[in-house]
Amino acid sequence: MRFVVGLKCVHCGEQYAPEAVDYYCPRCGYHDGILDVIYDYDAVQSELNPQSMRGKKERSMWRYLPLLPIADEANIQHLQVGWTPLYHAPRLSAYLGVAHCWVKDEGRNPTASFKDRASAVGVIKALEKKASRITCASTGNAASSLAGFAAAAGLPATIFVPRRAPEAKIAQLLIYGAQVFSVQGTYDQAWELCMQASERFGWYNRNCAVNPYLIEGKKTVSLELVEQFNEIGAGHFPDWVVVSVGDGCTIGGIWKGLKEMHRLGFLSKLPKILGVQAAGCQPFLTAWQQDSPLVPVAADTLADSIAVGHPRNFYKGMLAVKESGGAFVAVTDKAILEAMTALARNAAVFGEPAGVAGIAGIKQAVEMGIIGPEESVAAIVTGNGLKDIQSAVKAAGAPVAVAPDMEAVAGIIGGILL
Amino acid sequence: MRFVVGLKCVHCGEQYAPEAVDYYCPRCGYHDGILDVIYDYDAVQSELNPQSMRGKKERSMWRYLPLLPIADEANIQHLQVGWTPLYHAPRLSAYLGVAHCWVKDEGRNPTASFKDRASAVGVIKALEKKASRITCASTGNAASSLAGFAAAAGLPATIFVPRRAPEAKIAQLLIYGAQVFSVQGTYDQAWELCMQASERFGWYNRNCAVNPYLIEGKKTVSLELVEQFNEIGAGHFPDWVVVSVGDGCTIGGIWKGLKEMHRLGFLSKLPKILGVQAAGCQPFLTAWQQDSPLVPVAADTLADSIAVGHPRNFYKGMLAVKESGGAFVAVTDKAILEAMTALARNAAVFGEPAGVAGIAGIKQAVEMGIIGPEESVAAIVTGNGLKDIQSAVKAAGAPVAVAPDMEAVAGIIGGILL
Repeated sequence: MRFVVGLKCVHCGEQYAPEAVDYYCPRCGYHDGILDVIYDYDAVQSELNPQSMRGKKERSMWRYLPLLPIADEANIQHLQVGWTPLYHAPRLSAYLGVAHCWVKDEGRNPTASFKDRASAVGVIKALEKKASRITCASTGNAASSLAGFAAAAGLPATIFVPRRAPEAKIAQLLIYGAQVFSVQGTYDQAWELCMQASERFGWYNRNCAVNPYLIEGKKTVSLELVEQFNEIGAGHFPDWVVVSVGDGCTIGGIWKGLKEMHRLGFLSKLPKILGVQAAGCQPFLTAWQQDSPLVPVAADTLADSIAVGHPRNFYKGMLAVKESGGAFVAVTDKAILEAMTALARNAAVFGEPAGVAGIAGIKQAVEMGIIGPEESVAAIVTGNGLKDIQSAVKAAGAPVAVAPDMEAVAGIIGGILL
Repeated sequence: MRFVVGLKCVHCGEQYAPEAVDYYCPRCGYHDGILDVIYDYDAVQSELNPQSMRGKKERSMWRYLPLLPIADEANIQHLQVGWTPLYHAPRLSAYLGVAHCWVKDEGRNPTASFKDRASAVGVIKALEKKASRITCASTGNAASSLAGFAAAAGLPATIFVPRRAPEAKIAQLLIYGAQVFSVQGTYDQAWELCMQASERFGWYNRNCAVNPYLIEGKKTVSLELVEQFNEIGAGHFPDWVVVSVGDGCTIGGIWKGLKEMHRLGFLSKLPKILGVQAAGCQPFLTAWQQDSPLVPVAADTLADSIAVGHPRNFYKGMLAVKESGGAFVAVTDKAILEAMTALARNAAVFGEPAGVAGIAGIKQAVEMGIIGPEESVAAIVTGNGLKDIQSAVKAAGAPVAVAPDMEAVAGIIGGILL
């Protein structure tokens, strides 16, 4: 927290001292008033700059402590989070029709998704507040990452899921020992219960819609992207950074991190941001195309992690695309499934549907002329394919049934394989 | 390959030049004649020693190239493999009743299991041989890691699975683009077809039962364990290194790697090895207790990755325990499920059943007096829990159903939680 100077409401502009407020803007309320953490970048730069980082050994998101709202390093948990691999993927570039494609595999985080970066920070903030318990409402990666980091800290967690949450994701929560409430109602009802319980019992609230600190964890993916590219990349930083968009918090964090690295002298030119939505849930794309306010929609896509009809970080998400001169596109579920196999076969990275939507979006943007064939892209793959085996089964086709007989095998091989 | 002096049959002792033979001992055949890769350790030590490694930046299994049978570094694939996290786990130590417990989380590898270390080497050897295709018979982690690394290399792969292979694991293979034959018969029939197809079509054979190089990849987990412990551990190296045992190749590789680090001056005293089998499939334990030859058994356990009734690396596996003065134990499926939750809740690592069997084995060994309460242990967790969600569901219990009503939630919380 040494360099945090305040929390600023993205809606009304009011700025608060960090100790004055825990969540959303008291004036605007949680429907609008998400806060942005403001740093003294001149002071940050004295500790965090290209020279100082050269010899730094730490290879995790904690490499960037001066840019994180952490009061006491002793609260950092043992799980190795961040510094996920960045791969150059020539075969994938050819498939997508771009000059170069880089893939950052966030599925390699402790609970197998990008959300670990946010939950790692959320649990630390709960410990700072000496909270008795941490809570969120979610059925997906936010919940499983919270359960994992809460387990690491020995901090009790309560997670509210709607009745229809898939059995597999509930199992992941329970394995880590979270208390899981299966709310016999909708997701919105689960969310409301979580908000009320947090308030009533003083539990720490890990919901990106109200908590200003989670995006600070998320932005670290960009800090790494820039440093890793500078280390292994040949030539200029990718023209585009691409990510799937649900709530808007992730893309907002990515943009904030890139701006910070630009401000601190690691990056000479900011890339454009491509935000990729599912065709069955595209409120950002609609508002961007029509230059209109958010209109919440019903979500219909198999990419559950971006099936967010009412994005709470709309302002931050829209800012990323507008300020960078980027674009939004939307991709069908069919294109997402194709991207799953394309990414796995051409870059050997197995992503979940929302995780690979960015790959599908690059293809779409090239076809639309938004991304030129001479441009290069970096895609953030936000979650591991093992999180959603059912979609992989849909995407991957079927094995060849064969009798236990060598001549039968040879016949098929002769006809199909060689 | 610079330091490889030969391949020696573990059965008859015959030694071959590396270029003279690809797989098992020609004299003994594949039922007995697994080969061991022999190095010139004096020459290795001139390049790989505690001084030379201090400034080495590479953090992957390729850090140990002088100890690997790789002819050309250009064949190394991009996937970041190895240098998985090593965690000190005080709460888990207390639960297990040992002085210290360290957990090495192999589920953080590219396809989420320890087997990636072996497949990474296997694919390189196939490329060296200019093979047109690589093959194996398996339903589990060996297959999925092979599919992943073959995809990385753009090398076609054919995998033989028995008809009853679980849908999820088949999906992982297909996503990476492997050709998958679903053999309408038993695992043994799938294995025989694979051996015949490899021979008939000249495909490179990635089966630990016949391929001498895979264990070389596996041993790297021990090389890392020693270096990582020297870096972050306080005090002496763990008294025990613990791993689950199926075929015997993994535990054999772990022991070989430890002996190499001892030989090269990284480790002053060798630990004892605890090999943990499932109670429903314990041919190693039986042979060790009775000091008798291997008697193959029928396998009956939910820990599929160690459900190996006829271990092909029996000699190497038995050597690890006998030479180290260690022990075998067997654990029930119930104990394995308990270990899943214990590991997740006390160390925040979610392992698959075979991956956590080692944790259950520590508890068992402490209860039997094999491991003393003053001793310390390092457990290798071989696979990610996301590989087997059905077992996690069995282990983790059920969520609390609640009406979408705050008073209902508060009632339950008052009664249960606080």
